[in-house]
Amino acid sequence: MPSLEDHYPVDCPFCKISSAYPHTLSSPIPDSPDSEKVDPQCHLILSAPHVLAFLDILPMTPGHILLTTRKHYRTLSDLHTTSSSLSDNDDAQASAQALGSWLPVLSRALCKVTGIEDWNVVQNNGERAAQVVPHVHFHLIPRYQEGRRESARRGKVDAVMLRSWRMFGRGAREELDDGEGAEMAGELRSALREEVGGWKGKARL
Amino acid sequence: MPSLEDHYPVDCPFCKISSAYPHTLSSPIPDSPDSEKVDPQCHLILSAPHVLAFLDILPMTPGHILLTTRKHYRTLSDLHTTSSSLSDNDDAQASAQALGSWLPVLSRALCKVTGIEDWNVVQNNGERAAQVVPHVHFHLIPRYQEGRRESARRGKVDAVMLRSWRMFGRGAREELDDGEGAEMAGELRSALREEVGGWKGKARL
Repeated sequence: MPSLEDHYPVDCPFCKISSAYPHTLSSPIPDSPDSEKVDPQCHLILSAPHVLAFLDILPMTPGHILLTTRKHYRTLSDLHTTSSSLSDNDDAQASAQALGSWLPVLSRALCKVTGIEDWNVVQNNGERAAQVVPHVHFHLIPRYQEGRRESARRGKVDAVMLRSWRMFGRGAREELDDGEGAEMAGELRSALREEVGGWKGKARL
Repeated sequence: MPSLEDHYPVDCPFCKISSAYPHTLSSPIPDSPDSEKVDPQCHLILSAPHVLAFLDILPMTPGHILLTTRKHYRTLSDLHTTSSSLSDNDDAQASAQALGSWLPVLSRALCKVTGIEDWNVVQNNGERAAQVVPHVHFHLIPRYQEGRRESARRGKVDAVMLRSWRMFGRGAREELDDGEGAEMAGELRSALREEVGGWKGKARL
């Protein structure tokens, strides 16, 4: 069982991902991003001007997504500033708004792809709150129906969903299989494209 | 010990709060709102065009804040729509952005008032994810330093913070004392006013 530290080195892994997958003007949903641009692989589903989303490499349940800022902010409180620099304020504020805007869109795509109707959104700040990667991020965690393995993707849900929230940070989370991650990420990107494409307000995302 | 059901009746309690405390143009931070406009009392700290925030009446730790939408949306996914109604889309999108924008501001006020540096933000969707009130809301939950009761507001932190996340929804949460709630809410409103007042980007909140 790999430890979380094996996956999350001291230098910021989310900044590496942000740098490896820059935003392109064509679309916030990447076409078929190369998962091997970073190590461990990144199964990217969103690459917007201010935020990115990808699969957690140690999912609590299948489909566990992380939504993070493109720039490095340690905690949520760093996304508001009374700095005298208007451009710093603007970036922080735009990032906060983008997090708010994309959480519902990602939620809809996640429900569609996994079939779930229940999910948690969790954002941890600081060690005592179980934050491991010191770069602000939201977890989207599907909650599958208890005992309904057939409803769960690949039947891999089992007892993971029933464990305590204490597993955040340090726990017996299963490592994401890269093949399964690639497939899940592809389906999520398709679902996201449909969500964004069908939406009248998309210009503001 | 009152049950959660005693506090959260079938008709939507957050819609009642939203209706009792309409947004006024003067400021998103109410001056000295009457906590007895609703039953149980509401210790309001934010009353913005699209979102409201107030103290949880069954706090997991002292300072536990709820941030919710002014309009009724059941889950986070309802804040994105591919409806043909542009005004529906606009309201949902504006609400999602406002949630994103206010989470960092509330976080900073919470840290300042309680002295904490660690906190969780949690948003539950659906019964299996421990959602109790079917009106989308984020929890902001301070995580106080273990064994440092003196650092905690009123020394009431004790073992609550160490309990499992399972306590969400149904659990041994302590009822908020209205006197303490009023005092905490007043301090949070002052801190919020300072945050918003000192901020160059406030026009966008």
